[in-house]
Amino acid sequence: MTFKKKIICTLIGSLVLVSTVVAQDEHPRLFLNRTDVAAMRAAIGKYPLFDVSLRLVKPKIDKALAGPIDVPIPKDAGGYTHERHKQNYTEMQLAGVFYSITGEARYADFVRSMLLKYADLYPTLGRHPAAAGEAAGRLFWQTLNETVWLVHATQAYDCVYDRLSAADRAIIESKVIRPMAVFLSEERVHEMDRIHNHGTWSCAAVGMAGYVMNDKNLVEKALYGSKKDRSGGFLRQIDLLFSPDGFYTEGLYYVRYALLPFYTFAQVIENNQPELKIFEYRDQILKKALTSALQLTYTNGAFIPINDALKEKTYLSPEIIVALDIAFSRSGQDVNLLPVAVRHNEVMLSGAGVDVAKAIAGKKAPKDYPYKSVEYTDGAQGKDGGIGVLRYGPSEDQSMMIMKYTGHGLSHGHYDKLGILYYDQGREILQDYGSARFINVEPKYGGRYLPENKSFAMQTIAHNTVTVDGTSHFSGDVRIAERNHADRHFYEARDDHFQVMSARVTTAYEGVSMQRTVAMVRDNLFEKPIVIDVFKIVSDKPHTYDFPYYYLGQLTSTSVKYRSFDRQLSLLGTQNGYQHLWKEAEGNASGAVQVSWLAGERYYSITSAADTSTQVFFVRIGGSDPNFNLRHEPAFILRQEASSHVFASVLEPHGAWDGTKEFSEHAGSSIRSVHVAATNGDATAVEISGVDGWKCMLLISNGDGSESAGHTLVVAGREYTWKGNAQFIKQ
Amino acid sequence: MTFKKKIICTLIGSLVLVSTVVAQDEHPRLFLNRTDVAAMRAAIGKYPLFDVSLRLVKPKIDKALAGPIDVPIPKDAGGYTHERHKQNYTEMQLAGVFYSITGEARYADFVRSMLLKYADLYPTLGRHPAAAGEAAGRLFWQTLNETVWLVHATQAYDCVYDRLSAADRAIIESKVIRPMAVFLSEERVHEMDRIHNHGTWSCAAVGMAGYVMNDKNLVEKALYGSKKDRSGGFLRQIDLLFSPDGFYTEGLYYVRYALLPFYTFAQVIENNQPELKIFEYRDQILKKALTSALQLTYTNGAFIPINDALKEKTYLSPEIIVALDIAFSRSGQDVNLLPVAVRHNEVMLSGAGVDVAKAIAGKKAPKDYPYKSVEYTDGAQGKDGGIGVLRYGPSEDQSMMIMKYTGHGLSHGHYDKLGILYYDQGREILQDYGSARFINVEPKYGGRYLPENKSFAMQTIAHNTVTVDGTSHFSGDVRIAERNHADRHFYEARDDHFQVMSARVTTAYEGVSMQRTVAMVRDNLFEKPIVIDVFKIVSDKPHTYDFPYYYLGQLTSTSVKYRSFDRQLSLLGTQNGYQHLWKEAEGNASGAVQVSWLAGERYYSITSAADTSTQVFFVRIGGSDPNFNLRHEPAFILRQEASSHVFASVLEPHGAWDGTKEFSEHAGSSIRSVHVAATNGDATAVEISGVDGWKCMLLISNGDGSESAGHTLVVAGREYTWKGNAQFIKQ
Repeated sequence: MTFKKKIICTLIGSLVLVSTVVAQDEHPRLFLNRTDVAAMRAAIGKYPLFDVSLRLVKPKIDKALAGPIDVPIPKDAGGYTHERHKQNYTEMQLAGVFYSITGEARYADFVRSMLLKYADLYPTLGRHPAAAGEAAGRLFWQTLNETVWLVHATQAYDCVYDRLSAADRAIIESKVIRPMAVFLSEERVHEMDRIHNHGTWSCAAVGMAGYVMNDKNLVEKALYGSKKDRSGGFLRQIDLLFSPDGFYTEGLYYVRYALLPFYTFAQVIENNQPELKIFEYRDQILKKALTSALQLTYTNGAFIPINDALKEKTYLSPEIIVALDIAFSRSGQDVNLLPVAVRHNEVMLSGAGVDVAKAIAGKKAPKDYPYKSVEYTDGAQGKDGGIGVLRYGPSEDQSMMIMKYTGHGLSHGHYDKLGILYYDQGREILQDYGSARFINVEPKYGGRYLPENKSFAMQTIAHNTVTVDGTSHFSGDVRIAERNHADRHFYEARDDHFQVMSARVTTAYEGVSMQRTVAMVRDNLFEKPIVIDVFKIVSDKPHTYDFPYYYLGQLTSTSVKYRSFDRQLSLLGTQNGYQHLWKEAEGNASGAVQVSWLAGERYYSITSAADTSTQVFFVRIGGSDPNFNLRHEPAFILRQEASSHVFASVLEPHGAWDGTKEFSEHAGSSIRSVHVAATNGDATAVEISGVDGWKCMLLISNGDGSESAGHTLVVAGREYTWKGNAQFIKQ
Repeated sequence: MTFKKKIICTLIGSLVLVSTVVAQDEHPRLFLNRTDVAAMRAAIGKYPLFDVSLRLVKPKIDKALAGPIDVPIPKDAGGYTHERHKQNYTEMQLAGVFYSITGEARYADFVRSMLLKYADLYPTLGRHPAAAGEAAGRLFWQTLNETVWLVHATQAYDCVYDRLSAADRAIIESKVIRPMAVFLSEERVHEMDRIHNHGTWSCAAVGMAGYVMNDKNLVEKALYGSKKDRSGGFLRQIDLLFSPDGFYTEGLYYVRYALLPFYTFAQVIENNQPELKIFEYRDQILKKALTSALQLTYTNGAFIPINDALKEKTYLSPEIIVALDIAFSRSGQDVNLLPVAVRHNEVMLSGAGVDVAKAIAGKKAPKDYPYKSVEYTDGAQGKDGGIGVLRYGPSEDQSMMIMKYTGHGLSHGHYDKLGILYYDQGREILQDYGSARFINVEPKYGGRYLPENKSFAMQTIAHNTVTVDGTSHFSGDVRIAERNHADRHFYEARDDHFQVMSARVTTAYEGVSMQRTVAMVRDNLFEKPIVIDVFKIVSDKPHTYDFPYYYLGQLTSTSVKYRSFDRQLSLLGTQNGYQHLWKEAEGNASGAVQVSWLAGERYYSITSAADTSTQVFFVRIGGSDPNFNLRHEPAFILRQEASSHVFASVLEPHGAWDGTKEFSEHAGSSIRSVHVAATNGDATAVEISGVDGWKCMLLISNGDGSESAGHTLVVAGREYTWKGNAQFIKQ
């Protein structure tokens, strides 16, 4: 008998034994209900992906059952006790699910024993010994992990509820579930009422405790805030944390995390108060939140790492499995979600997971996730700027350009208004550093955010945008940054041969307004789509403008005559992130600056308008890093002393390199120079000249962003007239 | 009709039309003969891999036929004219093959036109304008490329020979094939007679010109050297360039390249002088050469990058396709070669290719290439040291440790006697830098070896071995290095739980003898096999010993209290490669030195015996690099001032990290300390202590390498007695 058949038979065997034992009670009803249980039992042996998912977790939970239960006294913030309590809640919840499916007593007994051990431990705990700050937990160093524990533990409790004695229930509820819910909703009420993913987790935890214990008071606090006046609570979180089209203000790394409590608690609400129609709420905002999260991944599944973000994080993360399965099941069985589920190669153990497995078994999944060029607004009203994505090409080899013109994004926000990121060949080409953190790696600062996260990764100079006078946007002050945002100017992606977006920020620096326009142009002049990047700065006072491109790859050539500091390196500056950049070389431009590099199997060149007043620095991340926390990656920075100035660059992918076949072609850019031909309050013209003698021009409106407005600009004596926001002209 | 069927039908259609046209002449007979042609015709539509291979190249050759033929005047060493002449010879040879298969005139006409253009051009050429040094070519900057051209062009000429008029043949032979063969065998005779891969190419080129033109004189020079006295020539190359077990003295990157002329010319010889029994020559040495090359790849197919080597190079390179297919066909149809052919997903267009495609169609390929722990000797007699490989685990997750104790390896040799490389998780963990070169990337020094290749990549300090007094082995002088080699001491890999190898070099430095012993130990004390690395140095004068580990990954922790130069970086030294290392931090040990890092999804720790006299440097490659030619990767260096000294370290892989699941475990080593418990002329004992209190010991013979010799060593008052070269004892 194959392993597969064996497991399935074992599971079916258990069902036969147990089906009469399941009591006609109201549990499970929290996250799973009896419909889920029936669906899962029926799915076994029928939908391969469901069987795969069962087989994936069964050894884990069986291994857990075979070992001793350890509920250690909390000690560390990323070491054994931390990891063990995380392991415990995962195993408890899984055991609960397996009890529901199989009815086997051993799973329920495991949950019971563990919950009783927590009931022993929890009342003895004070503030966690490794806690720091206001959000200190008891079981974990921060309440966040504690809420996650409760979200899992309540599910486990619900699943085995029928099997527990009234005495056991009383102990478990009175000594751990209720005290923890009270702790979270009273002592840590500032966390629960906070409009933030920690708040969402807190609401979910408190609410699930409420539902499972039939405590209406806790449920109402969870739904409507501690004062029950809708000034906080889960619905308020949904109202404020997403824009009308589903963008989550903290960005993708955290929406991925937040989707778990949002979807988990939504399913709990749907099971217990279907009259709230939670999945319809705010015009299906939860579905939109998932869709925007997926649209803001690159073709390799990696979330766009704006703000604090781990770059390893992809849509394969477990939270997305939960959110996607529930969204598929509860919001219209959208088959466009299925390509991602196919890559998951796993579904959750629930009725929703069964629905996905069934659809995939029915061959309903398209080949690729339908990525598109798209813009999302930010802010609860959709009025706090947004984020624009331009894409060209199929999933196998897609160019993608992102511009960030959102609000700040709460405590994990970075100071990078109008920052860009560029991907190609399935990899990052112009990178956002992401966060400086080795998550859960105990020797790296307990696995928490490293000091360099604040001192470098958050700072403006760490991003592909302009730093003024060596100071980060909003003086690097989160309070100021939170009160401001960038603004969309225009976004047009109907014509995939000329996609363009433009945004502005006037509040990042006093007396300095900035407008960035990024166009992705597919034209037969070039092998691949090029990106034209025009960053216009207006000020009536002189400033120093620093404009980096964090390219990934090996520099192959540059037009800049530079002085190399190849015998001794010093730092680019002393603060605001500059202290983390080694100055490898510097030079002055004499005409356009061109930098070419090799990344993967393709060459890239950036050609930027410049003159002798343009300083160029070649830098590398890694300075002021005594603990080896940073990645040593390069950038070049254009520096301009000016009052008003326009940075204009073209990024061209070109040629090919193959190390196995030892093949190289077109290592040089086809672009000779870029220059700002004209600019005024109404419009800007950027002219691009090719090495073969061709010329082309990008015309941009600096005006009101109307598609019907006419513009006129005189460039080198010739008058250009056009209608709309931007135009690309070949001459 | 599918594209596949269409091509097959077109090809079969051509056959029907042409089969009566093929003349009963003696051509083709050079590389392909009429048996090959018949086999290929019969294979179409029958063996999928052969069809795939046809379909892969057909569009290329048809595209070539559709375009203009360009035979430009030679100009550059890696730019358009260089690449175009390379493209031409490839296309010519392919067109010849396609003419043989299909008999379609257009393929022959293409070859004819191109050869006639070369016949026009070649007589006008003098020394190549971008040539440097003695090996200057005419068509290419170096004769090497020119020989490759001739190897291809003679095949093309042979394939279309029957279709050419006598006048065309006379022009082609007299104006390009013969003059080039004469140029190579007379003006560049020092290259042809050189025992080196360039010489092999030259012999193949001259010999193939000889066979195709029926010129016995050229053939004899090619086989037996310019003096026809066996002091040079192809057979001498075979005699001297391989050790008796097939190791090629230059290393893997170049054997991969050399296998092409060896196998190509061998097949030509077999077709024309089968009485030479070339594939049986020297006990099937060509087959052994291929096998050793494959055994010296890691599980990802990458060749071990000792000496000058591009790390991108894998067994997927086209040269290996040719060698493997011929070896399979002509040396006993060894099915162990087939897993590699499956990964090629391509066979050569020849009878040998058909044989491989047929075997794969017959499901004869095992799943994985049968990697094993193996030692190869170096030197024509197998007496110039060797290279040892220890492996543990299946191809999916294999630990591999290499020690290099070969001869120097000619002009591409590096000064790294007793250097080690370590791989795990499908990736490099302790790296050899490889060569400093961006092959064929014109803006990078014309695609040639960069100056940093000699100044850094070749130097001892760039490798995981000991540098004495800041000077490379053999004073970095190739003439001295070529006269010396390291020596094997012992190699034992019968027990996969305790594999050990030991080698010595006494000539790298005057008055300093070195012995390195590396053991791979699989024991239930550890999650994965550990490596124990014992480097014993004996001298009667004081020296400075620098011992680096070039780890790849992010440092997570170290036991060393160091001073960080995080505000200003300077170079570790001024010469012999030290000038390319930035000194990021330095400190003194106080007890064992431990350095841990994260690479991929696993942690690694090196724990080294040390005391307060041990200095530790944390360095990074990239100093003295004004042209951005180097990769900025880290190392740490143990420095010891001593006369005699033993460096003893343990490398332990441990734990797991998953960025998608945000999971980390066992980030810390299970080893507390390592110390050299005793050492004398006869034996060394290294004791390892665990954080959990366990102890174990490695006992090593420093004596005569006999497996039966007994050894006795007193360690801390206790006498240890054992028989054989090494023993691992748990206490």
